[in-house]
Amino acid sequence: MMNKKFVSTVLGVLCAVVSMAQREDSIAIRKIANDVLINGQAYENLRYLCKKVGPRLSGSAGAQKAVDATARMLKEAGADTVYLQPCMVPHWVRGEKEIGYIQVAGGAKYTLNLCALGNSEGTGKKGISASVIEVTSFAELEQLGKAVIKGKIVFFNFEMNPTYITTFSAYGESGRSRTTGPTIAASYGAIGVMVRSLASNPDDFPHTGVTIYNDSFPKIPAVAISTNNAIWLSKQLMKKMQVTAYFRNTSTMLPDAPSFNVVGEIRGSELPGEIITVGGHLDSWDLAEGAQDDGAGCVQSIEVLRVLKANGATKRTIRAVMFMNEENGGRGAAKYLGLAKLNNEKHVFGLESDAGGFTPRGFSLEMRADQIEKVQQWQDLFYPYGVYFLKAGGSGADVGPLRAIGAALSGLSPDGQRYFDIHHAATDVFENVSRRELHLGALNMAAFIYLVDKYGL
Amino acid sequence: MMNKKFVSTVLGVLCAVVSMAQREDSIAIRKIANDVLINGQAYENLRYLCKKVGPRLSGSAGAQKAVDATARMLKEAGADTVYLQPCMVPHWVRGEKEIGYIQVAGGAKYTLNLCALGNSEGTGKKGISASVIEVTSFAELEQLGKAVIKGKIVFFNFEMNPTYITTFSAYGESGRSRTTGPTIAASYGAIGVMVRSLASNPDDFPHTGVTIYNDSFPKIPAVAISTNNAIWLSKQLMKKMQVTAYFRNTSTMLPDAPSFNVVGEIRGSELPGEIITVGGHLDSWDLAEGAQDDGAGCVQSIEVLRVLKANGATKRTIRAVMFMNEENGGRGAAKYLGLAKLNNEKHVFGLESDAGGFTPRGFSLEMRADQIEKVQQWQDLFYPYGVYFLKAGGSGADVGPLRAIGAALSGLSPDGQRYFDIHHAATDVFENVSRRELHLGALNMAAFIYLVDKYGL
Repeated sequence: MMNKKFVSTVLGVLCAVVSMAQREDSIAIRKIANDVLINGQAYENLRYLCKKVGPRLSGSAGAQKAVDATARMLKEAGADTVYLQPCMVPHWVRGEKEIGYIQVAGGAKYTLNLCALGNSEGTGKKGISASVIEVTSFAELEQLGKAVIKGKIVFFNFEMNPTYITTFSAYGESGRSRTTGPTIAASYGAIGVMVRSLASNPDDFPHTGVTIYNDSFPKIPAVAISTNNAIWLSKQLMKKMQVTAYFRNTSTMLPDAPSFNVVGEIRGSELPGEIITVGGHLDSWDLAEGAQDDGAGCVQSIEVLRVLKANGATKRTIRAVMFMNEENGGRGAAKYLGLAKLNNEKHVFGLESDAGGFTPRGFSLEMRADQIEKVQQWQDLFYPYGVYFLKAGGSGADVGPLRAIGAALSGLSPDGQRYFDIHHAATDVFENVSRRELHLGALNMAAFIYLVDKYGL
Repeated sequence: MMNKKFVSTVLGVLCAVVSMAQREDSIAIRKIANDVLINGQAYENLRYLCKKVGPRLSGSAGAQKAVDATARMLKEAGADTVYLQPCMVPHWVRGEKEIGYIQVAGGAKYTLNLCALGNSEGTGKKGISASVIEVTSFAELEQLGKAVIKGKIVFFNFEMNPTYITTFSAYGESGRSRTTGPTIAASYGAIGVMVRSLASNPDDFPHTGVTIYNDSFPKIPAVAISTNNAIWLSKQLMKKMQVTAYFRNTSTMLPDAPSFNVVGEIRGSELPGEIITVGGHLDSWDLAEGAQDDGAGCVQSIEVLRVLKANGATKRTIRAVMFMNEENGGRGAAKYLGLAKLNNEKHVFGLESDAGGFTPRGFSLEMRADQIEKVQQWQDLFYPYGVYFLKAGGSGADVGPLRAIGAALSGLSPDGQRYFDIHHAATDVFENVSRRELHLGALNMAAFIYLVDKYGL
């Protein structure tokens, strides 16, 4: 009897302790949330990054302005130290505004909305012209083979699958047309590539993005055309019309340029050697303001630092990192990992926001099963703020490399239904960001880091 | 032994039956979802309603055009019958563009962005002018009392609480300044009212909406001013400045006008007497296109009918209803209930979409506890389509009255972070609707009705 009573007393005390801790956390997170919702700076910082800095492709003057601007923002947010991590980045320039058209059966010229893919070679001043061959899969390309493809312009008409509820899945699948399509087409002797823009809905904008050449094959020029152009072009080809395309881009890859990651740090009060990273990427494509991709992730990360600092000391060291060169090289992420290794740093957690500043829906967890289980026990603390899932999945391109040194990782999963309307296009501007959505993301990120800092992983 | 074996066999068969049913439902819902995502007409119907019909305040020519347009859309969607339910509606007209300004300490005039509240009386051609008294609560108004309020213009500065995660909660709380504020101010002798617009973020647009007079008190004219104007005005008043306001609106309530609910029906194949209603409201405010409020709910309801018809017969009778006059009278909803009673109809379920066509997050359930339990057993079927909660809550202003005749009710709960940026303002236009978000809502509504039709409630 005594034993049972003892056990039940101990259990009772334990439960009380657990529920008191949960209650304390709930109150602390409410305080963080209120601070972000009332005093949050993320939206105004994003306005500055979009409207005063603007496009910030790696190696550009805009990228350097963004480095300076976010270093200032990190100081204003209360970072104990702000420093730069130098890294060399690819320096690709688009050149003159691209031009291109389609000619059907020798008739009138139909002007295309197009842009060079990132890292693409140029066509030279005269441009290139050839018959167009449409493919909707790599298998089709292989079937046609060198005999048909040689000397042609390949048109990759990979529609983003509208039946996928997760737009990122459709992007992942069809995105291969852009990343590896040009190289594969070159391996069959194509002289150029036109890619259907990776957009969830038909529009008139070309959506750029990186293409990845392979030194074994010729680097042929590659452009994205708008989805509306692609739909129209496909219709012409279905009529078995003789279709020729012309396009011209003067893009060039210049020698690598110096650039930086920007790091703002709050030093841990108890375990300063244990590092928690929160970040987004500072570089953007050159066609717009990079508001959702990934200005949002940068200003959210700065906001996390601000609110945690305002909230009192953290046990561990918190770093808000503006990674450089995610879009066309990943050099900033590589440098961050390299320095972590060099300095023998202990990285316990890395959280990335690079899926847009939309309403948060969950976090995807790239960590050990026991760590996932631990995080999932915090579910009730997130629920009031709209985060309904904490589940296994990838983190992001910038914190991802930290897996090599044993860090637990996570990525914010915002609602993705509107992301590919504006992704890598001229429409990725400040006006397409909602203040409340952006700040809700930031406060959930801050809550996550608050918990990891307090309890470890 | 035999008994145990028998029981376990029966259980095994039952489980297999249940899991087979679940699997069938999962396949059927996938088919519905794909159809909506590929062939859905909701977005194009909304474009028509916004761009060809436009504003459609009860009693206006636009409202009649909307009746005709949606009757046609319901026929095209495959309704077995389409009919109108005549009802008389309030016929309020805004009159000339409102004008108004603030004068601080007899200085320069500061022009306001303002609009009359719906159903407001006019000021007469000359307008009204008086000192301004700001209140941030009804308690404050009471404290000031008649001695101070008499002859003044009351400025209700009720900010939507930014710390509420559910924007509708903030709207519900602060919205009383608009609905009952003018009447309460009149009871203290005020001659006019200016209400801070109910918007989640500061902007330059006045957000209109209904005010509800009470015959016991004078009907004093009432306007909404933009949030930015309200913030500025409050600052002037904090400086203890003598502030006078002038405004003029020529709004009038005309005699009731004839109008209609529009009903499209698929007749049930097995239980035609059991009626399932899905609807939104067809009327909108006059300042914009009523895209999110509530063109979205109308075209989603039409889409539900289309996809269910395309999917084969339904057991029960499905009605897509375009309710008239939700915004400033609720006469369409009252008529729908009245006819249901008159014709002794059996209403098993009513589903409303009137919170915008944003990404769906859940359904709120206004029904008996045992029915809620039954619906929650379908959670796994919704999960792949982004609907993460099925929980007790209100349905909506139009299907709500059906509770009087025992119908189980529900409302679609989309993400609400952006709703009050555009709600009742000139910015509630087609361009602020996402095709994928709208269609995701429609497909989840269709899935819900598919399940209720199949299994009852």
